[in-house]
Amino acid sequence: MQPAKTERGAMPNEETLDPDDWTALSSLGHRMVDDMLAYLRTVRDRPVWQPVPFEAKKYLTQSLPLRPQGAEAVYDDFKSYVLPHSLGNIHPRFWGWVMGSGTPLGALAEMLAATMNPNVGGFEQGAVHVERQVLDWCKEMLGYPKEASGLLLSGASMANLVALAVARNAKAGFDIAREGVSGAPRGLTLYGSVEMHSSLRKSIELLGLGSDALRRIAVNSSYEIDGRELRRAISDDRKNGFHPFCVIGNAGTVNTGAIDDLEDLADICRDENLWFHVDGAFGALAVLAPDLRPLLQGLNRADSLAFDLHKWMFIPYGAGCVLVRDAELHHQAFSTPADYLARAGRGLSAGPAWFGEYGPELSREFRALKVWMSIKEHGLEKYGRLIRQNVEQARYLADLVTGHPELELLAPVRLNIVCFRYAQRSLGEDQLNELNKELLILLQESGVAAPSSTLLGGRYALRVAITNHRSRREDFDRLIAAVVELGREQSARMAAIA
Amino acid sequence: MQPAKTERGAMPNEETLDPDDWTALSSLGHRMVDDMLAYLRTVRDRPVWQPVPFEAKKYLTQSLPLRPQGAEAVYDDFKSYVLPHSLGNIHPRFWGWVMGSGTPLGALAEMLAATMNPNVGGFEQGAVHVERQVLDWCKEMLGYPKEASGLLLSGASMANLVALAVARNAKAGFDIAREGVSGAPRGLTLYGSVEMHSSLRKSIELLGLGSDALRRIAVNSSYEIDGRELRRAISDDRKNGFHPFCVIGNAGTVNTGAIDDLEDLADICRDENLWFHVDGAFGALAVLAPDLRPLLQGLNRADSLAFDLHKWMFIPYGAGCVLVRDAELHHQAFSTPADYLARAGRGLSAGPAWFGEYGPELSREFRALKVWMSIKEHGLEKYGRLIRQNVEQARYLADLVTGHPELELLAPVRLNIVCFRYAQRSLGEDQLNELNKELLILLQESGVAAPSSTLLGGRYALRVAITNHRSRREDFDRLIAAVVELGREQSARMAAIA
Repeated sequence: MQPAKTERGAMPNEETLDPDDWTALSSLGHRMVDDMLAYLRTVRDRPVWQPVPFEAKKYLTQSLPLRPQGAEAVYDDFKSYVLPHSLGNIHPRFWGWVMGSGTPLGALAEMLAATMNPNVGGFEQGAVHVERQVLDWCKEMLGYPKEASGLLLSGASMANLVALAVARNAKAGFDIAREGVSGAPRGLTLYGSVEMHSSLRKSIELLGLGSDALRRIAVNSSYEIDGRELRRAISDDRKNGFHPFCVIGNAGTVNTGAIDDLEDLADICRDENLWFHVDGAFGALAVLAPDLRPLLQGLNRADSLAFDLHKWMFIPYGAGCVLVRDAELHHQAFSTPADYLARAGRGLSAGPAWFGEYGPELSREFRALKVWMSIKEHGLEKYGRLIRQNVEQARYLADLVTGHPELELLAPVRLNIVCFRYAQRSLGEDQLNELNKELLILLQESGVAAPSSTLLGGRYALRVAITNHRSRREDFDRLIAAVVELGREQSARMAAIA
Repeated sequence: MQPAKTERGAMPNEETLDPDDWTALSSLGHRMVDDMLAYLRTVRDRPVWQPVPFEAKKYLTQSLPLRPQGAEAVYDDFKSYVLPHSLGNIHPRFWGWVMGSGTPLGALAEMLAATMNPNVGGFEQGAVHVERQVLDWCKEMLGYPKEASGLLLSGASMANLVALAVARNAKAGFDIAREGVSGAPRGLTLYGSVEMHSSLRKSIELLGLGSDALRRIAVNSSYEIDGRELRRAISDDRKNGFHPFCVIGNAGTVNTGAIDDLEDLADICRDENLWFHVDGAFGALAVLAPDLRPLLQGLNRADSLAFDLHKWMFIPYGAGCVLVRDAELHHQAFSTPADYLARAGRGLSAGPAWFGEYGPELSREFRALKVWMSIKEHGLEKYGRLIRQNVEQARYLADLVTGHPELELLAPVRLNIVCFRYAQRSLGEDQLNELNKELLILLQESGVAAPSSTLLGGRYALRVAITNHRSRREDFDRLIAAVVELGREQSARMAAIA
């Protein structure tokens, strides 16, 4: 296997993945930039979403390519089989789940980041300083102390996981990292409302606490946690020999955008010596709009905070953030020394605290650049105005719903989420659920608009979550027109069958 | 707060993050493409790494920008304060830790992915089908069954975490997701060699198993796990009332690139009814080189497999992959149903199995595109040749080391990692450690080459890990010349002090 050595030490056939022809790749790159910007500029002219056609699905099952196809051909394939079949969340009338819409410069920033291609797990390099700055900006945005630690992650699910890991280790009262959860003398329990996001339960399962440890507290009619019931649950658990350690507050629930009384939760945690975590996936960023800020009173008293930058700050996926008030506890939960990761005062192994010691990822992509460039591009104030704009649009939509005799608002509109349904009076609850379920699919298939759905007290709701800088008021007018039209058609069809 | 309604339903000042002037952004995008390609084309002419200058660090502490700076100015800042201060892993003479070097088309692919900006947590969309295809290709590459499940993640740390979570839940023998680790009647234990990567310990801590549960088995002189000692440890644990559930095999250890006897481990796991996980962060991909494949015999018998695509396949960060033989067990460990995530047979909520139900991330960026485009661009065979090339370069370097009287090879070179030191005979062990430690920093600071370090039996080693498609033989000649020169200087300095 040892090849013959040549005189200058170069192997006879040393290869590289760099192109032979840089000029050709440059032309292709220019074409890509123009295509991508045109794609974004004209997004409003296309349907929000369309089913992926059979031909594309079939093409995307071809077996592993052994031979090179070349960059141009690959790009053509991308344009034929991938680009046309998007999820649609960059479209002005996509309001499903809670998804951000990205930006053109954000997309270009990803090319810059991937060209530098650093591993931002640590080391002394510019990318680390950019991420530190972005984290400092995040603290500043949310009124969090400068000494707090933080980390960029793929999204709020990961941020919640990291925060709850720190909470678990900090509050267990023994060396849980070494002994494991089964070393606990009393069962560890934590608390959040029934409206909590499912990723929190997943985190708790992953952390070995077991979903039984998660006490799901009832909500009031505004879908906010019932503080009295929370206090009672904590007290009952203590009496029954459990070890309560953490309360999770919601800053913007996924179903309706409800915000728990964070001041009250912070008080409870202070009184009960519990870790106070806030899941602010999208809602935390409402603090950027001065007139929404009061809704989030108490947010900055949290011991840890998880939120997304790819939702209401429209950064391309993935960009989530966790902040932890006590940097030392954060570090303790995730630092595992190793000989091959030894630090030094100088050289590549210098640099400030290594991010790999603050989360589960050791190899870390340069997520911070797109955030850094976007915040600098637009300035923070504009994000505040856009968040306010989305909330105003939600209120506008709620007004359209309540003003229409065939539509019914299903939950209070606190922030940017509107849950409603087509509700002709003659139909029963089961029929309404059936009708709205079909209506949603037809609406999505029409390409006019893409809400998603949820269940609220057993009622199937069309759910419009507005984290979209491209939406305009007229888009909600079109939504209402389409819902009413489809609702009437479906009513007629159901009447004909009955 | 409710603004006045205008006649056509548009708000007076509706804003967007899209540019006013698309043409200007297009010019900027073209400039970026040219700059980035030039940056890569000329990387060999620059130092591998240089310390981040004070001026840049200072600039990167400016407080949160409230007002817009505009895309051009932001790009200028990037070029002034970020781009010049790279980690260096794209450079032909960077061989620190185990890092990939990226590719130009990979970087462009990131721009395409971020323009589409899908959330690949699920849903019916092209990106999901691309990721499914990439996962099928990964199975094909590694000889894994088509029915296995998989997921792209940020890297092998996350892939190990997911795999061990599945192993834990599958082998616990009770409903550990609900009851938690403390529900285990007997302490769960798992096994791997002392050469295991630290991310595995971190995963085990995160999973609530406690690092005590991880039995660290001795290695032989080639740094491979001692199978007899492993069998004994399992047997002892059973006798002592523990519940062994998993063995972790290494396909390429981080310190020396050693590969455990995977066939033997697979046999042990079969005999003992244990989950067999393989951490193949970089080493698993050696199967792509036909003459290296025999080293990895048994790899495809693993119950789960974690490996990186951003290391030895040179995909831009982050791109790791987990494969799990039993798709149903994989799904069980990570699916948490929720009303707002309800599936449907048609519409946006259709589509094949949702990736969000196979890992901790619900929001998921479009990692698959850069992998898909890269494999198509170059064809799999070329990756096999490049992996072989790096292994040949490691052997070439090992020959240079063993052929030089002042250099000492510190570990067998099985794959692509060479551990050695400058070792003038007159110096004692402590002095050699001190000398080589300083030598490494000077070498990094010189910009000539960037190995990292480790400790092997107490001896400080310069560690060269070659996962770099830009390296040529002459680069290793330069490394050796620089090490010898710096070693002599340091020896002289130490002699002068003594």
